[in-house]
Amino acid sequence: MKDFETIVPAGDTRPREVCRTCGFVDYQNPKIVAGAVVSHAGKILLCRRAIEPRAGFWTLPAGFLEAHEQPEQGALREVFEEACARVVLEGLIGIYTVTHLSQVQMFFRARFAGDVAFGVGEETLEVNLFAWEDIPWAEIAFPSVTWMLERWKDGVDGMGDLSRFSVRV
Amino acid sequence: MKDFETIVPAGDTRPREVCRTCGFVDYQNPKIVAGAVVSHAGKILLCRRAIEPRAGFWTLPAGFLEAHEQPEQGALREVFEEACARVVLEGLIGIYTVTHLSQVQMFFRARFAGDVAFGVGEETLEVNLFAWEDIPWAEIAFPSVTWMLERWKDGVDGMGDLSRFSVRV
Repeated sequence: MKDFETIVPAGDTRPREVCRTCGFVDYQNPKIVAGAVVSHAGKILLCRRAIEPRAGFWTLPAGFLEAHEQPEQGALREVFEEACARVVLEGLIGIYTVTHLSQVQMFFRARFAGDVAFGVGEETLEVNLFAWEDIPWAEIAFPSVTWMLERWKDGVDGMGDLSRFSVRV
Repeated sequence: MKDFETIVPAGDTRPREVCRTCGFVDYQNPKIVAGAVVSHAGKILLCRRAIEPRAGFWTLPAGFLEAHEQPEQGALREVFEEACARVVLEGLIGIYTVTHLSQVQMFFRARFAGDVAFGVGEETLEVNLFAWEDIPWAEIAFPSVTWMLERWKDGVDGMGDLSRFSVRV
């Protein structure tokens, strides 16, 4: 059984969860989610989720960054794991923070590295390229997906102003 | 005493550190460092570190993002904690990953919110505004600080290409 207490560790300024048995400090920092808007001839690659939360809804390929990974590498790995696609990143679309989940989501513009080839990964039910007007908006899994798609559609290359940042509390 | 074992938890694909006593899974994800290049009339705010690592060397105000914080908020907080300055963010300069430390560093351009006022925070020995030619390059604490200063100097607003990303392995 987990037996943690909330104390301020030596040299720290904030209360942290510390194990009463071993002294392990469970620092809680935000986690990074990395993903991509992969497009081809104006169509966008979406995945239908096989897992909770929001199983059955459509999302952009994305997932938690692993230790020692770059966000760019994480985005490439997630696109491959969830949509079996090899892609090349072209730039950052935006950074979207979900504060209540302590998630910082970074999405990149991407194109196929070679042939337009994709498939259904383990956490995915279905993968498809959608023209903008065919995107199933009512069946999008998360608000950040909609936000990233809109930023992608803006077609602005720059991240030079804070309109490229968003937060969901 | 910490008594963790390395196993693949149910529903996971990678080995994780799991406590033999309580089953706690210590997921290791990269941590975000948020900071700012605060400038005024072409001069840049640098802090001399009072703490290890690299005590005595100059750095940009920055630090670990706390749970439920936006990177933008974290940058503002760190500038206030380390340099006692109230600033406004103007845009993202770059994202620099230090893979061996599992750190993703995000730095923002910033200006003073009101008066050009700053001071010495708890983790800082000295704070000063430096003209570009007066920056103590040989006494800069970390390679990412030099990289961010160079990106700032480029004066490019856009984050639209991957030259704005860097990695240190």
